[in-house]
Amino acid sequence: MDVFFLTMGAAMVLAMHAGFAFLEVGTVRKKNQVNALIRVITDFGFSTIAYFFIGFWVAYDINFFAPVAELNVMEGGTHGYKMVHFFFLLTFAAAIPAIISGGITERVRFWPNVVATVLLVGLIYPLYEGMIWNGNFGFQDWLSANFGAEFHDFAGSVVVHAMGGFLALGAVLTLGARLGRYTNTGKVNAILPSNIPFLALGSWVLCVGWFGFNVMSAGTADGASGLVAMNSLLAMVGGLIAALIAGKNDPGFVHNGALAGLVAVCAGSDIMHPLGALFVGVVAGVLFVYVFELLQNKLRIDDVLGVVPLHGVCGAWGGIAAGIFGSTSLGGAGGVTFMAQLVGTLAGVAIAIIAGFAVYMGIKATLGIRLSEEDEHMGADLAIHQISANPEEDMQTH
Amino acid sequence: MDVFFLTMGAAMVLAMHAGFAFLEVGTVRKKNQVNALIRVITDFGFSTIAYFFIGFWVAYDINFFAPVAELNVMEGGTHGYKMVHFFFLLTFAAAIPAIISGGITERVRFWPNVVATVLLVGLIYPLYEGMIWNGNFGFQDWLSANFGAEFHDFAGSVVVHAMGGFLALGAVLTLGARLGRYTNTGKVNAILPSNIPFLALGSWVLCVGWFGFNVMSAGTADGASGLVAMNSLLAMVGGLIAALIAGKNDPGFVHNGALAGLVAVCAGSDIMHPLGALFVGVVAGVLFVYVFELLQNKLRIDDVLGVVPLHGVCGAWGGIAAGIFGSTSLGGAGGVTFMAQLVGTLAGVAIAIIAGFAVYMGIKATLGIRLSEEDEHMGADLAIHQISANPEEDMQTH
Amino acid sequence: MDVFFLTMGAAMVLAMHAGFAFLEVGTVRKKNQVNALIRVITDFGFSTIAYFFIGFWVAYDINFFAPVAELNVMEGGTHGYKMVHFFFLLTFAAAIPAIISGGITERVRFWPNVVATVLLVGLIYPLYEGMIWNGNFGFQDWLSANFGAEFHDFAGSVVVHAMGGFLALGAVLTLGARLGRYTNTGKVNAILPSNIPFLALGSWVLCVGWFGFNVMSAGTADGASGLVAMNSLLAMVGGLIAALIAGKNDPGFVHNGALAGLVAVCAGSDIMHPLGALFVGVVAGVLFVYVFELLQNKLRIDDVLGVVPLHGVCGAWGGIAAGIFGSTSLGGAGGVTFMAQLVGTLAGVAIAIIAGFAVYMGIKATLGIRLSEEDEHMGADLAIHQISANPEEDMQTH
Repeated sequence: MDVFFLTMGAAMVLAMHAGFAFLEVGTVRKKNQVNALIRVITDFGFSTIAYFFIGFWVAYDINFFAPVAELNVMEGGTHGYKMVHFFFLLTFAAAIPAIISGGITERVRFWPNVVATVLLVGLIYPLYEGMIWNGNFGFQDWLSANFGAEFHDFAGSVVVHAMGGFLALGAVLTLGARLGRYTNTGKVNAILPSNIPFLALGSWVLCVGWFGFNVMSAGTADGASGLVAMNSLLAMVGGLIAALIAGKNDPGFVHNGALAGLVAVCAGSDIMHPLGALFVGVVAGVLFVYVFELLQNKLRIDDVLGVVPLHGVCGAWGGIAAGIFGSTSLGGAGGVTFMAQLVGTLAGVAIAIIAGFAVYMGIKATLGIRLSEEDEHMGADLAIHQISANPEEDMQTH
Repeated sequence: MDVFFLTMGAAMVLAMHAGFAFLEVGTVRKKNQVNALIRVITDFGFSTIAYFFIGFWVAYDINFFAPVAELNVMEGGTHGYKMVHFFFLLTFAAAIPAIISGGITERVRFWPNVVATVLLVGLIYPLYEGMIWNGNFGFQDWLSANFGAEFHDFAGSVVVHAMGGFLALGAVLTLGARLGRYTNTGKVNAILPSNIPFLALGSWVLCVGWFGFNVMSAGTADGASGLVAMNSLLAMVGGLIAALIAGKNDPGFVHNGALAGLVAVCAGSDIMHPLGALFVGVVAGVLFVYVFELLQNKLRIDDVLGVVPLHGVCGAWGGIAAGIFGSTSLGGAGGVTFMAQLVGTLAGVAIAIIAGFAVYMGIKATLGIRLSEEDEHMGADLAIHQISANPEEDMQTH
Repeated sequence: MDVFFLTMGAAMVLAMHAGFAFLEVGTVRKKNQVNALIRVITDFGFSTIAYFFIGFWVAYDINFFAPVAELNVMEGGTHGYKMVHFFFLLTFAAAIPAIISGGITERVRFWPNVVATVLLVGLIYPLYEGMIWNGNFGFQDWLSANFGAEFHDFAGSVVVHAMGGFLALGAVLTLGARLGRYTNTGKVNAILPSNIPFLALGSWVLCVGWFGFNVMSAGTADGASGLVAMNSLLAMVGGLIAALIAGKNDPGFVHNGALAGLVAVCAGSDIMHPLGALFVGVVAGVLFVYVFELLQNKLRIDDVLGVVPLHGVCGAWGGIAAGIFGSTSLGGAGGVTFMAQLVGTLAGVAIAIIAGFAVYMGIKATLGIRLSEEDEHMGADLAIHQISANPEEDMQTH
């Protein structure tokens, strides 16, 4: 029964990776669509390998090298529960490179990116994941002793999203902006997305899959909670409506706004009141729009899909918000403190920023991280994959 | 367990909204694709708000303003069952504007459409929903006393589909046809769809999600019925094959024909014999094709996606058919009468037609409902959203 | 409960048919996209009819003509379990024409193809299916007596995939190559795919749905196994990474490589060790790339999507591999023998090759199987369906 439950959850979060792929395909220029598709699925592949052989052991001190008869009943589970649990948690871990991918797209080299994926999913992510979700290093005990509660992150606002989003900050700054995005005279050139329907398709797939991400984070069918489902729904809706208005009816803002709400609700979806979740989503939608514009146009940070505001900023907001709207005084279920949420969130953000720079600067210094100017101009599709997104049509034209 | 069950159902019906979006994107002209995407997701957002704050209370006299601890066990449920039940029923309620959207697309104004959505999902739909599914106003008792049974609409052939489809009739007639669709000299100009693959994608998503719509209408995992699954399958197949033949192998007819069968099977899928369901689907497929052509070409009603025949006519047929093929004499499970089904269906259709004209004429008279000629000519994408479906490419061209 | 379990499985495998459709849409030329979409959904429709009225009875000696009250409890099930079991197994059966479709696309006639679908799903497939999964004809007893075990094919590497893939061999050879694909002078002309994002979309939908295909093959929620989920995951990843490398970063190879791993893991996913599954997937990915190139470029067999290597060769490899990696000496669960797997696989492949030639040669001789040169040149969309994939745009151009 619980195996069925987690299998559905894992399948839904696996589908989210298709969502990541199409959100990126729709947002990049056409000459980089194929590369976006291949990078996302390849990242998923290498994430699985890294998490299977290293990451899961780093976070939970479990590996899967015993014979099948033992694996089926390991850790007190039955029917191979621990293996589907691995699958479910892997789909979260693999979200890290999928998130970053949207920031570094259109100019990153292929194999150096794979190296980063392996380092992040095999090592960096499981370190923080284990700290929060497995009590490693005594961090939760320390928070509990000093701030009255453990850090509560039900479905990963911080563990997954803020981590991925702020890892992307180091990656994006290390890579630098796409050619022609910003001029020396201070001008900001818009680089238009290629395909709004694909962008919207990606967003829809992510939205639907998210209910697996959140609801199945309970781990067992008996733990499934209608509150989590409702809170996810209301935060999603709050985010999309807020981004619709703040973003002046722009399709990119509307469809990413729904995701902003979902990012922010992950941490506290099991303890906040539905009205709190709605409010958290509204704030996330507004945050996404304004931080996106701040980064892109004022700070000249070329985070193509806006993953720093979407996953980083909204994820951090979600971690903190769980400490506010989870309290019983606001109708929540309690068991959290504002300070524990704040400190836990800041720890995650700090680790992400530092690790992001370390990993990508390290790769830049050794393997190189950025496409040649010539390849970037030609587009990653032809430069790396020798094929474009619409080969039949493109061959006729040229 | 039941929470898991309904969560999967709600996620599948949520996915159907992506299906509605892509069915519309593929059928409209390219200059209105972005608008179709944004309207569908925005309608979903405002539907959630309207149903959360008003509609659910109108239909079931329940709201969600108590603290979380109480919400989790309200109405005798556990694990927040009532909240996921809300989510599931919301995805049905939100289908109302999603259905209408396909009829009024390419010429409707944005915010007046949102006002209509709020009125319909907050008020009109829950009135009829409550009458049928919650026994409000004594309508079911009256049918029972006079026609031998209550009105049986298992998964909403009438409550959702005929309601949405016939609400759209008033909307479409109030708006009038798209510019250039019909000439004063009696000529009918074909307005060609932009993208058949997107249309087909939308149809597939709807088909798959429909099994959540139908099977999970049981409400509890223990109530799930293989009969409902099989009947839905056979009606879908009957509809698609009938529309393939009646529609002369046209992709729009084939892919909508599958939906026609699914619309019609909702009401009686839990009581009809599989052979009855197959027949009901075949009739629905044929009905869709011929009524579509009648409305578009003879009656000059510019219902762009054919939602009046698809949801309205096939939904009404489904409501009535449950009274025929649900009877034990035709191998069904019984418990229904033809007259109760007929009267219940006609009541739904009448309410929908009246409310549709009232709401849209009211909005037309106050806010205005139709885009200016200039905006309609330019397309809703650029007029409302300042962006087209393929911005990179469109900017190069122009 | 088990009804819910199989309903989710059936819905996921139903979704795979959308995946088959888009994989084909993306790979064919644009002038055949609409035809690919309609053929896949129509094949599904006629498969349902053929399997409902004939095929299920051929394989399992069960039909559904009793009244509903009896159907709900037939074969000792409750809640109509046997009907959802039918639905689940139908989605497998309907995969046969969906697999073949990718080989014969761009030149097959419409209604003769429907006739083939009915023959294959109504008769050929259920014969072998019944032999393996229902013990018909004493084949399993004979294997057991002579080779120490029955033929083990948990989720259909051979029953579904090798069967479909090798049926396609006869179909493809009967049809002959597309016009202009190979010249008399020995030249091989590349025919480029139309749309890589659609190809990738199809692959993703198939990957996600596959977890329903594999995990739900347990038949009951209590039989769901985390081992199956993990093995499917690792084989998918092994296939995609191997095909990425062997296929030199080509999007078609990467996205089909994931499927190759999944095809190969079906047979032994419930008994192999995860490391065995990973290895099986890696081999499948490499096999797909090299056999694809062998067939297309050396043997001049115009199997458009490469369904013979993908489903045929990798399926047969999966059947045999279950006999290797399922053994306890390699950490597996045992209960299989190499020889039983080899013989069972070869029997399936032999039946498929013979039946494929028989059915398609028979249809060629009677109804004709191939489009006229004129129609093939014009494209199946305009020739058969009188519409193209982007009607609005195509009308403006021409």
